[in-house]
Amino acid sequence: MKAIVKTTAEPGAEVADVDIPTPGPRDALIRIEAASVCGTDLDIVRNWDAAAATWGSKLPMILGHECSATVVEIGDEVDEVSVGDVVVVETHIFCGECAACLNDARHNCLRMAIPGVSRDGVFAEYAVIPARSLYVVAPGVDPGLAALYEAAGVAAHATQRAGDVTGATVAVTGAGPVGLFLVAQLAAAGAGDIAVFEPEPTRRARAAELGATAFGPEESEPFLEFVRAHGKVAGADLAFDVSGAPPAYGLLFQALGKDSRLVSIGHMSTPLPVNISKDLNLRVLDWKGTFGRHIWSSWDIVDSLVRSGKLDLASFVVDELSLDELPGRLDEIGRLPGKVLVRP
Amino acid sequence: MKAIVKTTAEPGAEVADVDIPTPGPRDALIRIEAASVCGTDLDIVRNWDAAAATWGSKLPMILGHECSATVVEIGDEVDEVSVGDVVVVETHIFCGECAACLNDARHNCLRMAIPGVSRDGVFAEYAVIPARSLYVVAPGVDPGLAALYEAAGVAAHATQRAGDVTGATVAVTGAGPVGLFLVAQLAAAGAGDIAVFEPEPTRRARAAELGATAFGPEESEPFLEFVRAHGKVAGADLAFDVSGAPPAYGLLFQALGKDSRLVSIGHMSTPLPVNISKDLNLRVLDWKGTFGRHIWSSWDIVDSLVRSGKLDLASFVVDELSLDELPGRLDEIGRLPGKVLVRP
Amino acid sequence: MKAIVKTTAEPGAEVADVDIPTPGPRDALIRIEAASVCGTDLDIVRNWDAAAATWGSKLPMILGHECSATVVEIGDEVDEVSVGDVVVVETHIFCGECAACLNDARHNCLRMAIPGVSRDGVFAEYAVIPARSLYVVAPGVDPGLAALYEAAGVAAHATQRAGDVTGATVAVTGAGPVGLFLVAQLAAAGAGDIAVFEPEPTRRARAAELGATAFGPEESEPFLEFVRAHGKVAGADLAFDVSGAPPAYGLLFQALGKDSRLVSIGHMSTPLPVNISKDLNLRVLDWKGTFGRHIWSSWDIVDSLVRSGKLDLASFVVDELSLDELPGRLDEIGRLPGKVLVRP
Amino acid sequence: MKAIVKTTAEPGAEVADVDIPTPGPRDALIRIEAASVCGTDLDIVRNWDAAAATWGSKLPMILGHECSATVVEIGDEVDEVSVGDVVVVETHIFCGECAACLNDARHNCLRMAIPGVSRDGVFAEYAVIPARSLYVVAPGVDPGLAALYEAAGVAAHATQRAGDVTGATVAVTGAGPVGLFLVAQLAAAGAGDIAVFEPEPTRRARAAELGATAFGPEESEPFLEFVRAHGKVAGADLAFDVSGAPPAYGLLFQALGKDSRLVSIGHMSTPLPVNISKDLNLRVLDWKGTFGRHIWSSWDIVDSLVRSGKLDLASFVVDELSLDELPGRLDEIGRLPGKVLVRP
Repeated sequence: MKAIVKTTAEPGAEVADVDIPTPGPRDALIRIEAASVCGTDLDIVRNWDAAAATWGSKLPMILGHECSATVVEIGDEVDEVSVGDVVVVETHIFCGECAACLNDARHNCLRMAIPGVSRDGVFAEYAVIPARSLYVVAPGVDPGLAALYEAAGVAAHATQRAGDVTGATVAVTGAGPVGLFLVAQLAAAGAGDIAVFEPEPTRRARAAELGATAFGPEESEPFLEFVRAHGKVAGADLAFDVSGAPPAYGLLFQALGKDSRLVSIGHMSTPLPVNISKDLNLRVLDWKGTFGRHIWSSWDIVDSLVRSGKLDLASFVVDELSLDELPGRLDEIGRLPGKVLVRP
Repeated sequence: MKAIVKTTAEPGAEVADVDIPTPGPRDALIRIEAASVCGTDLDIVRNWDAAAATWGSKLPMILGHECSATVVEIGDEVDEVSVGDVVVVETHIFCGECAACLNDARHNCLRMAIPGVSRDGVFAEYAVIPARSLYVVAPGVDPGLAALYEAAGVAAHATQRAGDVTGATVAVTGAGPVGLFLVAQLAAAGAGDIAVFEPEPTRRARAAELGATAFGPEESEPFLEFVRAHGKVAGADLAFDVSGAPPAYGLLFQALGKDSRLVSIGHMSTPLPVNISKDLNLRVLDWKGTFGRHIWSSWDIVDSLVRSGKLDLASFVVDELSLDELPGRLDEIGRLPGKVLVRP
Repeated sequence: MKAIVKTTAEPGAEVADVDIPTPGPRDALIRIEAASVCGTDLDIVRNWDAAAATWGSKLPMILGHECSATVVEIGDEVDEVSVGDVVVVETHIFCGECAACLNDARHNCLRMAIPGVSRDGVFAEYAVIPARSLYVVAPGVDPGLAALYEAAGVAAHATQRAGDVTGATVAVTGAGPVGLFLVAQLAAAGAGDIAVFEPEPTRRARAAELGATAFGPEESEPFLEFVRAHGKVAGADLAFDVSGAPPAYGLLFQALGKDSRLVSIGHMSTPLPVNISKDLNLRVLDWKGTFGRHIWSSWDIVDSLVRSGKLDLASFVVDELSLDELPGRLDEIGRLPGKVLVRP
Repeated sequence: MKAIVKTTAEPGAEVADVDIPTPGPRDALIRIEAASVCGTDLDIVRNWDAAAATWGSKLPMILGHECSATVVEIGDEVDEVSVGDVVVVETHIFCGECAACLNDARHNCLRMAIPGVSRDGVFAEYAVIPARSLYVVAPGVDPGLAALYEAAGVAAHATQRAGDVTGATVAVTGAGPVGLFLVAQLAAAGAGDIAVFEPEPTRRARAAELGATAFGPEESEPFLEFVRAHGKVAGADLAFDVSGAPPAYGLLFQALGKDSRLVSIGHMSTPLPVNISKDLNLRVLDWKGTFGRHIWSSWDIVDSLVRSGKLDLASFVVDELSLDELPGRLDEIGRLPGKVLVRP
């Protein structure tokens, strides 16, 4: 089969012909309907050593983790899915038996494996995935668009962790794909005013389309005035950072009101200086980190929003590529106002 | 001024001329922009003795509790509102000093007074209300339609008590005005499938318009099939009874899934037989009673939904009357698919 | 091996010699260190048809579900336990794959099996249990006393569902073994005043020893005065019914304050008439059913309390019997102020 | 009356004779039974300009904020307390009318005043305090020891914000008076293993007496091993920093498990570098700031623990001084293993 493979630690990746993998007794062989591209994929293509150091990944490795697929073969002990099911992959493959898995924290499995990050991924025609990590999509959902469940699920999890959203004044820094999914879901959950801070004009325009009031890099003051005018106790009730950019936190710590909540989604490579007294204590702040999706409630939320038309996945697709086209187009992807689908 | 006054314990009420009341040092005199009619008003008109027994009410009494108004005079010690503010009345007038008020439960004040129930009400041109019980409406909200905040706030409080709504499969029994506000707010908060059970066809039609799938009295089985097909664990994730009708609970206790939640809003005059083992314990149910609005968060939610266009108050008004017309029209109000506004 | 077997639908059970069972690939063969006796065991001995109707149980069946044990053999695919581990059995054997299990509600597994209730139990020298349903006890805990984890875990789960306990005024109806475990755990969790209502004097004495103020059947008024004097808002902050007796609820609905919480543990064979308006709505009550233990957090809590000496299991044992003695002694067990251990 | 007054911005304070203040209509005049000394008092004595810059304080000012007292006179409009009541002062004097107060966040009042910080304090024979900010102590509590409710209440609030404590493995950095109150309350709430990291040997000894396992500055590794051995998912379930020391956070971020919780109590004058990806996101951490006490639930918890003997206030007093003695002894107070009471 055709796949995008990373063969050397140098930046780049290539299209190659590889064998179709064979499922073990608890696995499923899936035929990829569509994959979607995430910032993590770009990081691995460009900066293999860092990824390998964190995850113990080995070359050669098929890239890609977000995908939807059809089950074409299952192992002897598989109950969770049937041949023909349209599924999406919970890319945080959990063991089911570690302390995290036994404590309702499968999203934090201590032996987590990730396709395309720590083992062979899904930028390919087929992949083998443990059946317990597959989510069967509701009937009627477009089998290709379902590839976006995974990224949308990150926003769902962040929203779940945030607590009450209906009527809240929300500040969001960063409107890349996850930030845009977040805005769409906040709007669908009845958030009051959503203020987005984002440098890319096309992403701001898309955020506005989804219900936010968007501010650019020269508009810190209007952003702050907006959230202070609408928040309950001298500032935003709730904030999310999706950017992973230190200045974004500088802004959010001015924007947040008293007794407010902050959810961190974006990753950051340098330590962020935090004023414990002023920003946490005197504010009586709740600050939550988030990672991946809650298994399976975040998936159920996305599935429900998609089925009911409250989340229009098609509107998040900005481009579609073949596997052959992807390697040459990676550089543009980091600034797009939505997701790129890869159809094997 | 003109007012609707209950003068005898017999069913009925009349329009009368009474003095404009005088505010005390912590009160505001408000000019009523609009009042709205609630089932409780009908109960008091028809069945004075029961109300008086519960609330210690005394004749003669001006009726009515839901209203919006403009502040026209304030007492010497009033900081909360200014003359000219457009306000709505938190009809559960709290003392601010009892054990409930000191424990963040002002909605349950131990010395609660209610205009039109335990003291003079708001079916009048003017009323005097403690300033602490007035909520200033966001600029731009129609001053008359704001009378509906109070009933909409009951639905907001019920939704707050329910916990996570986004993506949930919800069963609702009873689609009178509060039930309809509930459906609208569940939809605005991202609920997945909302199944409504309601005998009145016009109310069913309105519920459907607001996003629900509505079932009539002959459709218990389809109702159950619907929620079981969509709920997470063998039934609805969440249910609300707004009807106060015992058979509604019979239906909900079949509809609810495992680890589910039930919120009771409707009042019931007879005890309901409940199967503790099967309905509560083996289901690991969370069952919550609710009453009035959380002060002030429920009001903030309604205000936010109205401002942002997610709750269209005008669409809930089915008729407008003058004070003179109201007494003769009370009998029709109990079956309407929305609210009746009274413009003094 | 020796076992207590139910062979006919008539009341009674007998000691019999049966084969040691053989573990499947995901099972463990365990040697019983001690079993303990629960009201459910007595129900099955006396009233087989009811149990069989609910659970589809088939004769002959080995009785008993609560036990501690040592693992003596494991199937080929078992990772969770090792030979020699001291374990207790999570008697609500979950499938791990149904909608409940996939939604963090394994305690409510839709295909739940229970040893001694729906399949062969643990009043025997050996038993076979799926390895995923075994909890490894902390080193140093007495292997026999650990049999009490299961019943203590019911009280732990109820306390978890109750929410904030520290400083709360708590009313408890019923001080059988689970009620006594509950009192001990409420005291260990820093509850303020604990009022217990219980007819049996020996159970009242034990409750008092564990930190409660105990009231007998003639003391409804002092019970109510006590909780009203100490609760935050006109009554108890929190209540538990462990008795499953309708009059207990009559008392609790007078005892509970505003904005309070009620947890139902005891099962009841007849419907309980509930006044929705007064008892739920106007009180803004949170009412929770509970069943079994949260897997595994309830077990972790018990294990921690036992390890740290805050829960003294030995003090809960009122008698120890051999398998041979148990059938003849069943009738006395229903009124004892603690648990009976059976040592095979 | 005699009082300790700060008269110049230079370090130091003096005993002076000043007039007994006069209560306004909503105030109470209280006779101080005992005051206690807090690190904030020391900061103000030594570093007036910083305090004045934050709080707008003006010289001369009577120092001191923690106290218990007897009400000796009340203003005309006071309902909350009566002459003769034994009270403690909620030193975060709230207005009751700002956005924070109206949103159940009186602890975060936007117009907060603090005796001895922003206005005249309680190191004096008498003080005037708004009646709404007085908490009436349970009968039987020692009127002098009740001065410690305020500091104990900070620990209560932190514990409330932490969520589930029973059975949890907890790491605490800093065992000054608030840290010690915290350890006592964690133990009273059923925490499992409590690991304390603290440089002062007398404070470590006191922490151990209260139920903790205490580690000194050379014992980072044993501290980490201890919490990792006992915590649920690869580390502590819960941690508190009371020290405000950056290295403490370095340690806690190694100690915390997955899906864990961190509560910040101690203030810190320099920004703390935080690794958002590793410490918050990949850990799915809940991090909460806390400040003061929740009004009034934190007070109720302390009152309940004291009444029931679970918190022995007397054991926290390490010295008693007169007003005359206090100024000369301030320097020793910062390292004591408990609180100093001042009896006017």
